[in-house]
Amino acid sequence: MTTPTTPMTGTSTGPEARGGVPIRAAVLGSGSWGTTFAMVMADAGCEVRLWGRDAGIAREVTAERTNTKYLPGVELPVMTGTTDAAEALAGAQVVVVAVPSQVARTTLRDLRHLVEPDAVIVSLMKGVELGTDERMSQVIVEALDVPSSRVAVVSGPNLALEIAQRQPTATVVACSDESAAQLVADACSNAYFRPYLNRDVIGVELCGAVKNVIALCVGMAQGRGFGYNTTATVITRGLVEITRLGLALGADAETFSGLAGMGDLVATCSSPLSRNHTLGKYIGEGRTLEEAVEATGTTAEGAKSCRSVLDLATKHGVDMPITAGVVAVLYDGLPVEEMARALLSRPKKSEGVDA
Amino acid sequence: MTTPTTPMTGTSTGPEARGGVPIRAAVLGSGSWGTTFAMVMADAGCEVRLWGRDAGIAREVTAERTNTKYLPGVELPVMTGTTDAAEALAGAQVVVVAVPSQVARTTLRDLRHLVEPDAVIVSLMKGVELGTDERMSQVIVEALDVPSSRVAVVSGPNLALEIAQRQPTATVVACSDESAAQLVADACSNAYFRPYLNRDVIGVELCGAVKNVIALCVGMAQGRGFGYNTTATVITRGLVEITRLGLALGADAETFSGLAGMGDLVATCSSPLSRNHTLGKYIGEGRTLEEAVEATGTTAEGAKSCRSVLDLATKHGVDMPITAGVVAVLYDGLPVEEMARALLSRPKKSEGVDA
Repeated sequence: MTTPTTPMTGTSTGPEARGGVPIRAAVLGSGSWGTTFAMVMADAGCEVRLWGRDAGIAREVTAERTNTKYLPGVELPVMTGTTDAAEALAGAQVVVVAVPSQVARTTLRDLRHLVEPDAVIVSLMKGVELGTDERMSQVIVEALDVPSSRVAVVSGPNLALEIAQRQPTATVVACSDESAAQLVADACSNAYFRPYLNRDVIGVELCGAVKNVIALCVGMAQGRGFGYNTTATVITRGLVEITRLGLALGADAETFSGLAGMGDLVATCSSPLSRNHTLGKYIGEGRTLEEAVEATGTTAEGAKSCRSVLDLATKHGVDMPITAGVVAVLYDGLPVEEMARALLSRPKKSEGVDA
Repeated sequence: MTTPTTPMTGTSTGPEARGGVPIRAAVLGSGSWGTTFAMVMADAGCEVRLWGRDAGIAREVTAERTNTKYLPGVELPVMTGTTDAAEALAGAQVVVVAVPSQVARTTLRDLRHLVEPDAVIVSLMKGVELGTDERMSQVIVEALDVPSSRVAVVSGPNLALEIAQRQPTATVVACSDESAAQLVADACSNAYFRPYLNRDVIGVELCGAVKNVIALCVGMAQGRGFGYNTTATVITRGLVEITRLGLALGADAETFSGLAGMGDLVATCSSPLSRNHTLGKYIGEGRTLEEAVEATGTTAEGAKSCRSVLDLATKHGVDMPITAGVVAVLYDGLPVEEMARALLSRPKKSEGVDA
């Protein structure tokens, strides 16, 4: 299998590639990743509107060019913040969705009549929907009633706070339709942000969803006092189990060893800023899920998605021991110590994905 | 391709598997990894002699059960420290070599007449010999004049200081001969150290050698102020270029996504204790190689091996941009800034190993 991944280098550098007419883009969700991606697109020359429910943020983005709540210390480029979805979506050729994954369906259903008929929809969301076990691009297709060829996914080793500091970063834009992927790549390609194209939407989305579960496990291990050997082993075995699920669902093996797979997994598991990592650490130190959620002030994505991921795996007969261990610790009261023992002692026939 | 990786679980737990007669093992090299591996084997029930040139360490290991120079705070199991190679090697069925890779050939040549004719030789060394561009197992075969079927390699996410604290750790034992690999696995399998078998000696050794070069690059990037996105990208692209070299040399692709490949690379690049990482960081901060070596008090393995690795790659027509960048920074005065720019802007056709 070869991955249809092509570079943007030399072939596009934002709107100039489109004859000098700025691409109009809307971003739904004014949190840290949504605001950062709006910034990336504005720096690529797009005309960007950032929609969110918080009127204070909207006003500040427009007037002060800052979002002090989510990106303190960052000076944003010129863009329009708004709480008016009609204003944000009118004329938008690219619609970026960066709302919490478990509210994506209802949010998008409400906005459906405002989305331009030919717009390309981009998911920045990581996770699997509870109840339906659907990936976010599937939720978008259903909630907006658009063909999957118009839904793209952006994922990679993309910690928002580093990109907001304009640190050079590579990412993957995945879409079944190459011209739609190219439009998205044109909209976000700038001096510090470098997109690669890929057709494997399933693989890229699975990586984004399951990495949060693996990051939880890494956090738990570190909270229990284990060091880099254990961390590296969990990350390595974690990528093996993500790959195994992906192959069962028809994804491309190469996606998992690329930037959206291994790259994002390593970045997420390394950063002490990752919410999944921090939540796992508190639990590894002995707190309950409830106490850990209270201490972090948020329910990390992985804690919500892990059951859906395990459901998906069970449905397809795929063995995911790390994910199963995380679910057992979070929801069935299994002590972290026993999860670690079970993971280390389980009989394995091989190191590979067939194991 | 399938990797012949089998677990030790249930099939062997040290010398009991050999009818209760302890395996006799010699370790050559009383530094941190040599001493730690001697400890692992002693904890697995072997009778271990640890040879080194430092008489103080030898005396301390035997009498005090410590090696305060290399493993401060660690209580060793019972073993014999000695400066007498004849005493160490007499009757040793397993001979573990843990001397600096660039002196391995001369050290082993001197001891050749003392090695038992049927002993299995184990390399713990990471690197490629300068001048010959040979892997360490090749150096052993030549220096001791033994068949390659009697030379095994041990490698994985194995930071010595964590293993010395008896943290649970997995590793890979590679040998072309399965019964030799099994003997080594029996000799080191204990409650906290878990070996997997693999036949791909070339792949496991290449991973061990090139990961130090990638860790240097990660250190340089972090010294320059880049964050986790860049680190994860270098690690991901680094594994791609190690894999590319490995495939050209006949290694098995699966080795690179396993514990000796991705696992060791992630552990080495994450640990702030890695000498390669620290050396790279000093250089990223603006010091010369000479100044950085003086500050770290040691020449990190990657700084020595990178030219040999690049030689190997050139010989086989393999593109290794990260390795080439590290060589250019260390030996040709290329500024780290320009290496980063070159790596980010080089045209790539794909994310994969064919790129």
